[in-house]
Amino acid sequence: MSNKGEFELIREFFTRPATDASVHMGVGDDAALIAVPAAHELVVTTDTLVAGRHFPEDACAFDIGWKALAVNLSDLAAMGAQARWLTLALTLPASDEDFLREFARGFFALADQENVSLVGGDTTRGPLSITVTAMGVVPAGAALLRSGARIGDDVYVSGTPGDAGLGLRLVLGQWHDELSDAARDFALQRLQRPQPRLALGAQLRGVASACLDVSDGLAQDLGHLLQASHVGAELMLELLPRSAALAETDAAFADILALTSGDDYELLFTAPASARERVAAQDTLCTRIGTVTAAPGLVFFRDGRAIAMPQGGFLHF
Amino acid sequence: MSNKGEFELIREFFTRPATDASVHMGVGDDAALIAVPAAHELVVTTDTLVAGRHFPEDACAFDIGWKALAVNLSDLAAMGAQARWLTLALTLPASDEDFLREFARGFFALADQENVSLVGGDTTRGPLSITVTAMGVVPAGAALLRSGARIGDDVYVSGTPGDAGLGLRLVLGQWHDELSDAARDFALQRLQRPQPRLALGAQLRGVASACLDVSDGLAQDLGHLLQASHVGAELMLELLPRSAALAETDAAFADILALTSGDDYELLFTAPASARERVAAQDTLCTRIGTVTAAPGLVFFRDGRAIAMPQGGFLHF
Repeated sequence: MSNKGEFELIREFFTRPATDASVHMGVGDDAALIAVPAAHELVVTTDTLVAGRHFPEDACAFDIGWKALAVNLSDLAAMGAQARWLTLALTLPASDEDFLREFARGFFALADQENVSLVGGDTTRGPLSITVTAMGVVPAGAALLRSGARIGDDVYVSGTPGDAGLGLRLVLGQWHDELSDAARDFALQRLQRPQPRLALGAQLRGVASACLDVSDGLAQDLGHLLQASHVGAELMLELLPRSAALAETDAAFADILALTSGDDYELLFTAPASARERVAAQDTLCTRIGTVTAAPGLVFFRDGRAIAMPQGGFLHF
Repeated sequence: MSNKGEFELIREFFTRPATDASVHMGVGDDAALIAVPAAHELVVTTDTLVAGRHFPEDACAFDIGWKALAVNLSDLAAMGAQARWLTLALTLPASDEDFLREFARGFFALADQENVSLVGGDTTRGPLSITVTAMGVVPAGAALLRSGARIGDDVYVSGTPGDAGLGLRLVLGQWHDELSDAARDFALQRLQRPQPRLALGAQLRGVASACLDVSDGLAQDLGHLLQASHVGAELMLELLPRSAALAETDAAFADILALTSGDDYELLFTAPASARERVAAQDTLCTRIGTVTAAPGLVFFRDGRAIAMPQGGFLHF
């Protein structure tokens, strides 16, 4: 317990001047009042992070704040939405000024980067957990859904999946092989401060036929997309993009990480072959890794030969 | 752990056919897609209930589901909003089919009563807590704020405050005096299944000058309203409405309960004297209990004589 009251701390760290004209009432009344632009749909998602499950009990507060927001913004990115407004429900075991300050710093570092406004929240006493509800907008009818993949479409993934999985093994002390300091830092950064692919998601409107974000592992999440679209896919493992960090690890293990580890928050999407130039023109690295097929299910190939399905992705809950 | 997988249980109890045409995409994609009606503002609030803090660890799951929603809808009611859409973040220590079924029954009993749609959610493993984000709409510019009270306005409260406080004392085993079975049942019902005053809130648009909901105790919450409006008030204790249940208790103690106990979820509002007929015409009991004054602060009177301020309201966190 600090010298300051808890209400005062919350106010100090989480109340900021409203700068977004769409926010007619932010924190401070019974609810927020927001003007949603005409001809747009409201996009809403909510995700909870629980200490000991989604991050270590002793994780750095800045990273917890960043990530609690990032996982939600990633869902908006996967819809092709522009992120706009947030609510934050923070449950804390005790009033801890240092924790609150650093948590708020991490949370607002990402909120400011993406120009999203905190419009409401609730702080309660209890075991540490954070629930963020993120709201955004998308031009009506333009959202990227999971269900639009068509036979013959290309399958793409953004960035370099598997890095966060390597980072998690480092954090858990489950990594005993050689790894350069640069690779270690990169993998930890990817795990602890994921960058939601908002700019890419918005650019994929009218380009991608289906999209979701990779939170549970590429193979499992691709399965969700294929199921929603009533199609299958062939994935060419030799096409999987690999970061310099992941390239330091055993190649077979790198594939497993890329396919099954969670927390990447990259976008996984499909697009017709006619869109290849537009996909290649994105600012974010997007790699074609497979093809949508009529036969349901996911088949893996390496250098033209079908191989056995690796183990399933990371299952939350 | 039951025979069914946890994902399956969540799907079984929480996925329901979309019946609201404004929900273009509900549960099942990365985020929900919602059409907000033109010429309306979006109203957003979020509240967390934590086991052992907001309800007893052994509380009935139906009541937990009901109340987690009710406290959020009460915030929308206080804004004069129509409740429309919900997200639910549920953190559970273990998969418990009976708990999930009863929680969902309670949650949807109120959601159906108020015609609000669950559009998204997240289920995680951890200490029991529930965060609901409730969204509604209000005609642009018509929301009831805390800041509109004017000198000379009447102060009103809906229903009969203090009942939930009596219920809490019963639940905690802190009530040892005589009480009829009917009074006991009524007080418990008021604590465990509060009715958000949505219909009243909507009717008060254009009538009330300021409004909030009583969650922390009438005296403390009235203080918030007065502070936001930069005014004070005189409260006439002999005017406080009293339920038959509360009337069975000692009169002085009943006043304390009515003024300081939380969890009532009644509306506390101000309105000009010219609106008395319109307030009296409400379907919900609304009782005039005081007057807004220029002098800041809250002064209590009983039968024309100023009396000392009772202790503060219930402080969350």
